[in-house]
Amino acid sequence: MPPGLLTWTVCLCSLVRWYWQKEKREPYVKFMEANYPPGFSYEDFGPLFTAEFFDPNQWADILKASGAKYVVLTSKHHEGFTLWGSKYSWNWNAVDVGPKRDLVAELATSVRNRTDLHFGLYHSLFEWFNPLFLEDATNVFKTRKFPTSKSLPELYEIVTKYQPEIIWSDGNGNAPDTYWNSTGFLAWLYNDSPVRDTVVTNDRWGVGSICTHGGFYTCSDRYNPGHLLPHKWENCMTIDRRSWGYRRNAQLDDYLTIEDLVKQLVETVSCGGNLLMNVGPTHDGRIAVVFEERLRQMGAWLKVNGEAIYGTKPWRAQNDTVTPDVWYTFSPKEGKVNAVFLNWPVSGTLELGEPQAKLGETQVELVGYKELLKWVALGEKGIVIALPQLTPKQLPCQWGWTLQLTDIN
Amino acid sequence: MPPGLLTWTVCLCSLVRWYWQKEKREPYVKFMEANYPPGFSYEDFGPLFTAEFFDPNQWADILKASGAKYVVLTSKHHEGFTLWGSKYSWNWNAVDVGPKRDLVAELATSVRNRTDLHFGLYHSLFEWFNPLFLEDATNVFKTRKFPTSKSLPELYEIVTKYQPEIIWSDGNGNAPDTYWNSTGFLAWLYNDSPVRDTVVTNDRWGVGSICTHGGFYTCSDRYNPGHLLPHKWENCMTIDRRSWGYRRNAQLDDYLTIEDLVKQLVETVSCGGNLLMNVGPTHDGRIAVVFEERLRQMGAWLKVNGEAIYGTKPWRAQNDTVTPDVWYTFSPKEGKVNAVFLNWPVSGTLELGEPQAKLGETQVELVGYKELLKWVALGEKGIVIALPQLTPKQLPCQWGWTLQLTDIN
Amino acid sequence: MPPGLLTWTVCLCSLVRWYWQKEKREPYVKFMEANYPPGFSYEDFGPLFTAEFFDPNQWADILKASGAKYVVLTSKHHEGFTLWGSKYSWNWNAVDVGPKRDLVAELATSVRNRTDLHFGLYHSLFEWFNPLFLEDATNVFKTRKFPTSKSLPELYEIVTKYQPEIIWSDGNGNAPDTYWNSTGFLAWLYNDSPVRDTVVTNDRWGVGSICTHGGFYTCSDRYNPGHLLPHKWENCMTIDRRSWGYRRNAQLDDYLTIEDLVKQLVETVSCGGNLLMNVGPTHDGRIAVVFEERLRQMGAWLKVNGEAIYGTKPWRAQNDTVTPDVWYTFSPKEGKVNAVFLNWPVSGTLELGEPQAKLGETQVELVGYKELLKWVALGEKGIVIALPQLTPKQLPCQWGWTLQLTDIN
Amino acid sequence: MPPGLLTWTVCLCSLVRWYWQKEKREPYVKFMEANYPPGFSYEDFGPLFTAEFFDPNQWADILKASGAKYVVLTSKHHEGFTLWGSKYSWNWNAVDVGPKRDLVAELATSVRNRTDLHFGLYHSLFEWFNPLFLEDATNVFKTRKFPTSKSLPELYEIVTKYQPEIIWSDGNGNAPDTYWNSTGFLAWLYNDSPVRDTVVTNDRWGVGSICTHGGFYTCSDRYNPGHLLPHKWENCMTIDRRSWGYRRNAQLDDYLTIEDLVKQLVETVSCGGNLLMNVGPTHDGRIAVVFEERLRQMGAWLKVNGEAIYGTKPWRAQNDTVTPDVWYTFSPKEGKVNAVFLNWPVSGTLELGEPQAKLGETQVELVGYKELLKWVALGEKGIVIALPQLTPKQLPCQWGWTLQLTDIN
Repeated sequence: MPPGLLTWTVCLCSLVRWYWQKEKREPYVKFMEANYPPGFSYEDFGPLFTAEFFDPNQWADILKASGAKYVVLTSKHHEGFTLWGSKYSWNWNAVDVGPKRDLVAELATSVRNRTDLHFGLYHSLFEWFNPLFLEDATNVFKTRKFPTSKSLPELYEIVTKYQPEIIWSDGNGNAPDTYWNSTGFLAWLYNDSPVRDTVVTNDRWGVGSICTHGGFYTCSDRYNPGHLLPHKWENCMTIDRRSWGYRRNAQLDDYLTIEDLVKQLVETVSCGGNLLMNVGPTHDGRIAVVFEERLRQMGAWLKVNGEAIYGTKPWRAQNDTVTPDVWYTFSPKEGKVNAVFLNWPVSGTLELGEPQAKLGETQVELVGYKELLKWVALGEKGIVIALPQLTPKQLPCQWGWTLQLTDIN
Repeated sequence: MPPGLLTWTVCLCSLVRWYWQKEKREPYVKFMEANYPPGFSYEDFGPLFTAEFFDPNQWADILKASGAKYVVLTSKHHEGFTLWGSKYSWNWNAVDVGPKRDLVAELATSVRNRTDLHFGLYHSLFEWFNPLFLEDATNVFKTRKFPTSKSLPELYEIVTKYQPEIIWSDGNGNAPDTYWNSTGFLAWLYNDSPVRDTVVTNDRWGVGSICTHGGFYTCSDRYNPGHLLPHKWENCMTIDRRSWGYRRNAQLDDYLTIEDLVKQLVETVSCGGNLLMNVGPTHDGRIAVVFEERLRQMGAWLKVNGEAIYGTKPWRAQNDTVTPDVWYTFSPKEGKVNAVFLNWPVSGTLELGEPQAKLGETQVELVGYKELLKWVALGEKGIVIALPQLTPKQLPCQWGWTLQLTDIN
Repeated sequence: MPPGLLTWTVCLCSLVRWYWQKEKREPYVKFMEANYPPGFSYEDFGPLFTAEFFDPNQWADILKASGAKYVVLTSKHHEGFTLWGSKYSWNWNAVDVGPKRDLVAELATSVRNRTDLHFGLYHSLFEWFNPLFLEDATNVFKTRKFPTSKSLPELYEIVTKYQPEIIWSDGNGNAPDTYWNSTGFLAWLYNDSPVRDTVVTNDRWGVGSICTHGGFYTCSDRYNPGHLLPHKWENCMTIDRRSWGYRRNAQLDDYLTIEDLVKQLVETVSCGGNLLMNVGPTHDGRIAVVFEERLRQMGAWLKVNGEAIYGTKPWRAQNDTVTPDVWYTFSPKEGKVNAVFLNWPVSGTLELGEPQAKLGETQVELVGYKELLKWVALGEKGIVIALPQLTPKQLPCQWGWTLQLTDIN
Repeated sequence: MPPGLLTWTVCLCSLVRWYWQKEKREPYVKFMEANYPPGFSYEDFGPLFTAEFFDPNQWADILKASGAKYVVLTSKHHEGFTLWGSKYSWNWNAVDVGPKRDLVAELATSVRNRTDLHFGLYHSLFEWFNPLFLEDATNVFKTRKFPTSKSLPELYEIVTKYQPEIIWSDGNGNAPDTYWNSTGFLAWLYNDSPVRDTVVTNDRWGVGSICTHGGFYTCSDRYNPGHLLPHKWENCMTIDRRSWGYRRNAQLDDYLTIEDLVKQLVETVSCGGNLLMNVGPTHDGRIAVVFEERLRQMGAWLKVNGEAIYGTKPWRAQNDTVTPDVWYTFSPKEGKVNAVFLNWPVSGTLELGEPQAKLGETQVELVGYKELLKWVALGEKGIVIALPQLTPKQLPCQWGWTLQLTDIN
């Protein structure tokens, strides 16, 4: 996956998924006690996950409008519930229980019907409470009942059935890659599978592989190092500051603003990373309107500033030495350096410490504004650029602006 | 209710309330058939209206932050379900069924604990399917079983129990005010009730009263005449273009943008009206985050531009003859004319046809900007004002700006 | 209602109805806490009362087969839920909530389609938790909101709509008949109502009326005095020793055996009473098979021994002075004395102390056995009767046998 | 399992289990359409199988009182739902879903706490809709994914965990025993398992094995050949004439009477078989009262006539040549021939064609009656026995009587 492409993970989690974790946290326990009968368990939410409003075309329209190039759907998370009708997860999947629909297939089709939008799948290796996994764990992974009868068959199944262009693996469960037989699977994936020519994978395939082996590194959730990395990497984060799944009780300030999100994107791409921006849908199959708004805002920004993101490479500098919140990318085809500045200077002039202009050659444009900008070279100290005076409507966008510099050192 | 005060109606409707109307509309019927057992009726939604996330303090915080001065809660809509534990609506109210809480009491307390935030109640006179009302209707309202045993006892009950400062009456059911005994009730309300000194009412008290009799006129839903009216009036509208209740399947473009909402507010207040801006909460007691965002955006705008709204009166002109989307109000205390302009002119100068400036006396300010503006008087043809050149951050707000003119004709 | 007629009350109670009483009894509270979410209330059972298996023709077949002459359905019990679509009990009745059917109308039709089977209605005056009744009670019944708007309109409604031949009133709520206006209602019922020529009522119409005023006396639940009473009376009892409603957790020894039931019937009719034998149906509309069995067993017994029950009058003696468990009735038409003996004597001869036989005139028959029996008169000391020797199959029935004596003193 | 032992199968089926079969029968489909939302599937019944009234001690008391010697619980039927918390049936078992209890463990303990009551388990090899089984079937059983990962591990699990004394196998799914590896499992069961010294099995272990191989033959459901068989066999039948599971809509005449059941038992034991008499419990964990009644009636009969059943062997004749409905067994210890006659002759004398009495030696007793009976030998033509004349109370029982003959040919 080339840097600069956006990817959205969509996590179809039920309403209180984290309730099911090993350490029961107090607020979730209290919520369950107050609202459900004694003994109500996570499994009982199965039939309540209805997805009656799930419209994959509407989702794909929104995702396309966001400017994303890849959609990564959580095909199965740590609770083991598969969004497709897995043969190996009978009566614990979205075709047998709840929606009674193959959510993976439906979204795959809709996504692929949009131009230039690709489809990938997240997949958790381990499952919190699968008794076969727990048995293997008790045996210090000397037995391999679980990968043999569950995780590996399912991985082969989703690749063969849905031909994803990304396999976003997760959840090693503290087991080594030999337990998961990741090497065997990846060998098949890259050499013999139907997606051998297109597939991309990440780095979570067993204890010790994260951030050291794999197609692109994810290192940790919300990983954003702030400097260039030698290996392809990804910042996978989520609009809700505190959760990957949809939280009914989230409030406005729990969500990142569009300014926050643009900043995340620009920082990530500058440093050679890819942004994976998650939204958690609802139990009835909707993308909450506030998420739709964020996604469309991001798309509006990218419609103007996409040249600074898509198809770019890291430049020699990532951010500016003089002015904070300026991030660079490089467009190899056009030979342009892109400088995205997140604050419009009150003075009307922007001083950049990194680019060294060449008199008579360098040109400076504000993306979305038709005239060339005036500038003054400071030699090794950089360049000072005069920004135009624009009314609110004349501004190319509201939250981050791109300068493009040609013939620059 | 003095003009210029904001009021929010909050309608606690269940998820497919309109399904219960007389003419069953096809999409609702289809949705019910696809998702519920045969014979599932509106009444069966009662226990599903759970409001487990209803936090009246959180609501009151959001409503206060919106800049509203009044909150009007729908105590009972046309389906007859009362949000308080009405004695006359046994087992069809929020204390006996569903939330098992007195939602009216809880919200009243929280709202009144905020400074300068008042509490009112919407109340529907008729009920779509109440068999006693239907019997009276069949008798061409010659019998009065329904108002005697239901609507009037409930009106007295909510006034006595909750002491609302607004009674927002609705739903005459094609019956005259003599059937409802509105005159008798209003006489008690204004002369003998505990709120006789503070209460305000609207104009929906029986066939023929709307837009002709009452405290303030509402005339029709979303009423916005665009010119000055001789009587106090209100524009009651809703953020969702198509519904007063919360629709799970609403999408972003079904909602008014903050630009739309600011425009509604400015137009309404200019013409002597009051804006009542509705949001429909969810069945589990939440204000959807996108509504919270709109409300807070409105509050942010009012924090800057409140002087053009609160405590103002209509000016001699409502909008401008030369420049469209400019609306006037008048602040009597300060003797200022407020001109709210919704589009920032590209030219940097704003020409207004209505105000006639006096040389050496008239002063022009941009609210939120510290320096006086320069202007040129055009005599009877008005005034041309030079706007300052501001970067995005310097702008006092993003969606509508207020000029204040003193010593103007 | 002439003595000798059987009546079954059928009480359509929900599963844990008694949970709703004022004093919450511990086992019900515990059951609710263990199986339902916190705050689940009695009203929440409404939608769970489904009656999907309710087949009024099947019920009527079983009730007819039981030998009953009257069926009395509980149209409304103390919880106020009406089994018909009462206009005065909106959204708390079986047409709006739960079954969505008019159970009273359906059963009335089916019962009346059987020959010689009559239809009556039980009706509770007061309602445990109706807020209007509670308000009246707080006012020591000086106000009459509840009877005016609820109980009286409903009584008129069921009489007019369903024309019951019995009104089995219950539940005075410690209020006098003047509060209930029972005199007014009964005057209308007997003089002007559509059932004025056929209707029968009981004695529960207000404090002090029970066992002293009314068509027939009920005195107390399971009333069975064991001696002749001067006024018509009824033994209303139930097959379940501990409940009128269906209890899912009842076991075999909680139910009366057919021997117990035959004994109840014979004792009651001997003493001039009528037996009302209750069964509680299930929430899904069934008569449990064990109840069907008891009803059919009773019908089988009555098919043989009906002459000792139907159309009889009390004799001068009710039970025998010499042999226990022998009960007498008198058939006026045939001039026969019926002696029902519940134990077949091992000796083969039955000595009766009451009947005084006349030599050459008196005849003694065993009902269901074709030959006359031999006997020896003991003068004032009674009669000794030789019973035939019968194999199990030859016995007319299994649990109580009838001797008929003619020309006896 | 020695002949003469009774065994009850208890099938914990959900309410409309047969709805889930391949050919959907019309009445079940209609019932589902009328009462459930579209798309409601069999799996959705899981959480509705609550068993909140399941009291294993109460069950064991009833089962013990029935005179049964063995209890066979359906640990898993064709729908694959296990009543214990199988590791191989995650989220489709009674511990994860519905009751949240290990029903097998609880009943095993309670049964074993009763003297002389043994515990066995029914187990279905195949599962109607298990996708792995369906895949194997599609491959004409050349693949063995299902037995490897599901049925065999589960068989080993239940034997090891619950140590059943009977494995009642069922459901070959048209696959040969080699597919199921029945030979391997049985070898382990009889040689190495913890129950190797006590376990008994039946004959349903793969296509072709039924009625030809196995511990005891079952041949078909409700198998009752009416003549002696050379191999141990069992008549497995059910009190409901039409179903093994509990049917809410069953009526009295759908159930066998106690006379029918006694006849089944006597015929079966006469011919060397064992009777397995099934009752289907309810979804909330109860044995319906009418079943409790039948079980206790059977126990009452066995309390009197047990000598003709327990510990007996077939006699040289099974039924009588002269009098119908007379069935013979032989008590080896006492050297008695038992003749159970189901109809008490009106004549008072019973003629038997099979037994040949020896003058001065042969004695004839009626079980439950203290005196010896008189008889007349007919030489090779048999014997005529004079029955005593008994009143209803003197009869040892109501439905089938046992004669015991000593010193008979």
